Amino acid sequence: MAGTDKTRAESTTEGPAIILVEPQMGENIGMASRAMLNAGLADLRLVRPRDVWPNPKARGTASGADVVIDGAQVFESTTAAIADLTTVYAATARPRDMIKPVLTPRRGADEMRSAVRNGEKVGILFGGERAGLENDDIALADTVLQAPLNPAFSSLNLGHAVLIMTYEWYQAADETPPMQLPEGRTQEATKGELVNFFERLESALDECGFLHIKEKRPIIVRNIRNIFQRAHLMEQEVRTLHGIVSCLTRTKSDGEI
Amino acid sequence: MAGTDKTRAESTTEGPAIILVEPQMGENIGMASRAMLNAGLADLRLVRPRDVWPNPKARGTASGADVVIDGAQVFESTTAAIADLTTVYAATARPRDMIKPVLTPRRGADEMRSAVRNGEKVGILFGGERAGLENDDIALADTVLQAPLNPAFSSLNLGHAVLIMTYEWYQAADETPPMQLPEGRTQEATKGELVNFFERLESALDECGFLHIKEKRPIIVRNIRNIFQRAHLMEQEVRTLHGIVSCLTRTKSDGEI
Repeated sequence: MAGTDKTRAESTTEGPAIILVEPQMGENIGMASRAMLNAGLADLRLVRPRDVWPNPKARGTASGADVVIDGAQVFESTTAAIADLTTVYAATARPRDMIKPVLTPRRGADEMRSAVRNGEKVGILFGGERAGLENDDIALADTVLQAPLNPAFSSLNLGHAVLIMTYEWYQAADETPPMQLPEGRTQEATKGELVNFFERLESALDECGFLHIKEKRPIIVRNIRNIFQRAHLMEQEVRTLHGIVSCLTRTKSDGEI
Repeated sequence: MAGTDKTRAESTTEGPAIILVEPQMGENIGMASRAMLNAGLADLRLVRPRDVWPNPKARGTASGADVVIDGAQVFESTTAAIADLTTVYAATARPRDMIKPVLTPRRGADEMRSAVRNGEKVGILFGGERAGLENDDIALADTVLQAPLNPAFSSLNLGHAVLIMTYEWYQAADETPPMQLPEGRTQEATKGELVNFFERLESALDECGFLHIKEKRPIIVRNIRNIFQRAHLMEQEVRTLHGIVSCLTRTKSDGEI
């Protein structure tokens, strides 16, 4: 029962089926499963896996993505594995002499999102560790997915290839704002609070003689204000800075008396 | 000497240093190295790795990314590992109570590209497998990088976390056109060649009686033309279709006579 609850909590969604054709290492199947659940995907299909399935090594590297491992289906052929899909993509790094459109994973993910929104069922084929997809498997796909990578070293680990696609699938619906500051109990300081601190600091600096050259004072003050300005201080941080000034001036007086 | 040539061929470029803080498994260090070289990066730094370095397991999973493994530097502290950098990012999935900007890997990669263009040296901190980065390490960073992922299952494998960042780094400079068709000896068919085939097919269909209902003929012809129109046929494929029609009509005649 705990397992069932966990499965529910892992919030999987409709998305592309991940189809591994002749995968060899259980570790890679597990890593692919983990990458799938990281992106909320759970439809894993294995075509003629080399080792017996279920594979304990796969469960190990899946690191808790049991919902993917437990739901994986095994097929005898690629055609059987894709029979219920309307659009199939083939992930391959090697250019082939095939007349087929080639998309980056990013563009492919956009296309898949549209297709799934329209009720289509899509899937992505990945080849085994040794040689990738065979031409006959690629011929079954509508579109080739090829990640732009270092042309001198473009061969991806199988789990990594799956991650790039599942990650892009998740990003295609992401609405994270350009930059976030963590929500907390503290707020960004107002300009009033900032200027209040500036004046307090400058009067302390006047007292200790740091700003004693009259004609240089405005430049130095401006420079100091710019430093703190750039820091986008929080209310709490301004309070901390006040405390620092208090403490430093107290120590100094103590030392001098 | 062969090694030197290979290194050169692997075309690494200036980019972020990848700093693994207390990594545990050699396999993950190797996978991170492979992901780095997939994106043309080679500056790997290890802070207090659990196992002895060099680590043969790392070289195994690096799958030929020897230039990264051989160049890796080991440090006693995070501060020592980042001493020469101007901007440091911390990759972490866990939200912290720290007042620090948070970027997605994609935005972060854009920012890093600008920084590197301006001659800055940047780096990305990744925590160990068990608990990720400690707060003291995150405090050393200017910006937190957090990948939007399934909130119910967001913990990434270490190699996968590195891949997401190095992949985004590479994509930030990618100029792949939206859709590519593979270059080949064959060309897209002209509309003339297409219409020539249409008329040939339709006359064959007239002969065999498929289009015999006069008032329906225009609709059926239009439907058939649309099917082939949508396929964006190549010259060679039109020739193949001509061959198919020839063959089918020949067989039929043979069968009927």
